[in-house]
Amino acid sequence: MQHGPTIDVCLTPYLYPVYEKEEQIVVIIDILRATSAICTAFQYGVTKIIPVASVEEATKYKQQGYLVGAERNAQTLDGFDFGNSPFDYMTERIKNQTVVITTTNGTQAIEAAKNAYSVVIGSFLNITALCNWLVSQNKPILLLCSGWKNKFNLEDTLFAGAVANTLSQIGVFKLLDAALAAKYLYLQAHENPYKFLNYSSHKERLSALGLKEDIKYCLAVDKTNVIPKLDENYLVLL
Amino acid sequence: MQHGPTIDVCLTPYLYPVYEKEEQIVVIIDILRATSAICTAFQYGVTKIIPVASVEEATKYKQQGYLVGAERNAQTLDGFDFGNSPFDYMTERIKNQTVVITTTNGTQAIEAAKNAYSVVIGSFLNITALCNWLVSQNKPILLLCSGWKNKFNLEDTLFAGAVANTLSQIGVFKLLDAALAAKYLYLQAHENPYKFLNYSSHKERLSALGLKEDIKYCLAVDKTNVIPKLDENYLVLL
Repeated sequence: MQHGPTIDVCLTPYLYPVYEKEEQIVVIIDILRATSAICTAFQYGVTKIIPVASVEEATKYKQQGYLVGAERNAQTLDGFDFGNSPFDYMTERIKNQTVVITTTNGTQAIEAAKNAYSVVIGSFLNITALCNWLVSQNKPILLLCSGWKNKFNLEDTLFAGAVANTLSQIGVFKLLDAALAAKYLYLQAHENPYKFLNYSSHKERLSALGLKEDIKYCLAVDKTNVIPKLDENYLVLL
Repeated sequence: MQHGPTIDVCLTPYLYPVYEKEEQIVVIIDILRATSAICTAFQYGVTKIIPVASVEEATKYKQQGYLVGAERNAQTLDGFDFGNSPFDYMTERIKNQTVVITTTNGTQAIEAAKNAYSVVIGSFLNITALCNWLVSQNKPILLLCSGWKNKFNLEDTLFAGAVANTLSQIGVFKLLDAALAAKYLYLQAHENPYKFLNYSSHKERLSALGLKEDIKYCLAVDKTNVIPKLDENYLVLL
């Protein structure tokens, strides 16, 4: 029998109603590439990110003069400033700015969880900072994978497993079934996550678009200490 | 790039609408214990099983004189003939009979998938017969885990992984992300699945009820060659 606050994993945003509970910290995960891009944007000095679920909302912000990132099916939409690649946000243009973002999966997951007790953004890029903060909170944790169009995906579950593994090493938690499964998956993959994802559907999708460097960057750990947090309708630094 | 028909895993019945597609064979999985009990009942000579989602429906059948199995939260409900344990169905009483069954999770999964192209019942008890039949069909396969009250569970995913692993050894299939994850999980667990499930929520639940022998039996492979199949509203032998 394990003790401590629970860690669970919601494997796609579609399942969120089943996993919703009070006083739970929700970590939004979209490794390829929304949450990796969001962490990178804060590292490069963005002040505020407004996540929106639809392209229509994103277009309205663009017309008002905002910098806007918009991605669907792994590609940057025409007429917007950025896509979903972390490299898009490594620019002086975003420093001290507000940026609006809409993506295929990640911003849908944020939308699903927006009424949770606390919502933060996780990626391999900020994993250690995130885990240290989570341990300090002593609350139940839900790792919410964005998946692909409401289906399970491998890379988000892999990251959920990395977090479950780290948290169970540095704190006292009770891992529920999905967290146990994700942890076992991570333990099998951690020596070479890039290779592990070889047959994953989204890696195939991104590789076909020539985005292998994006994948490698999104699997790199601890490039930043930022922890983006949802505050009402926008993300700010914790 | 892998070829052949796809294998995917729907990790809880709640996700079924996301995974529904035409001409797909759906394998219903509720290892602890509904699909293990159903396979055992056919092995012991039952002619037909009527799965019903609610206790109300089960009660109506009972009043009409049917033999009825009814389980909620791992316990047999008062006033019914059987619960959810495979051992309940190892009896001459069911030979050449029709039996009605309602369970916490398994019969809900059957209900969710009832309009699929083909619906069959899987468990470790009939895994080889099932896999051989699946290969012969040359159709997309969806492994539908019953989970626990619409949440992910470890034992159903483990079995999905065992099927994905066997099928990829004896046939040519393209494993989608959830099938890959389940297969990796199975490969880590297969030497001692009982130990692997040590911290799983449902094993804890059943162990607390003194049902360790049930768990061991449900993890035993190839006790039977039966493949129960949904035909309209009831299960019969394929």
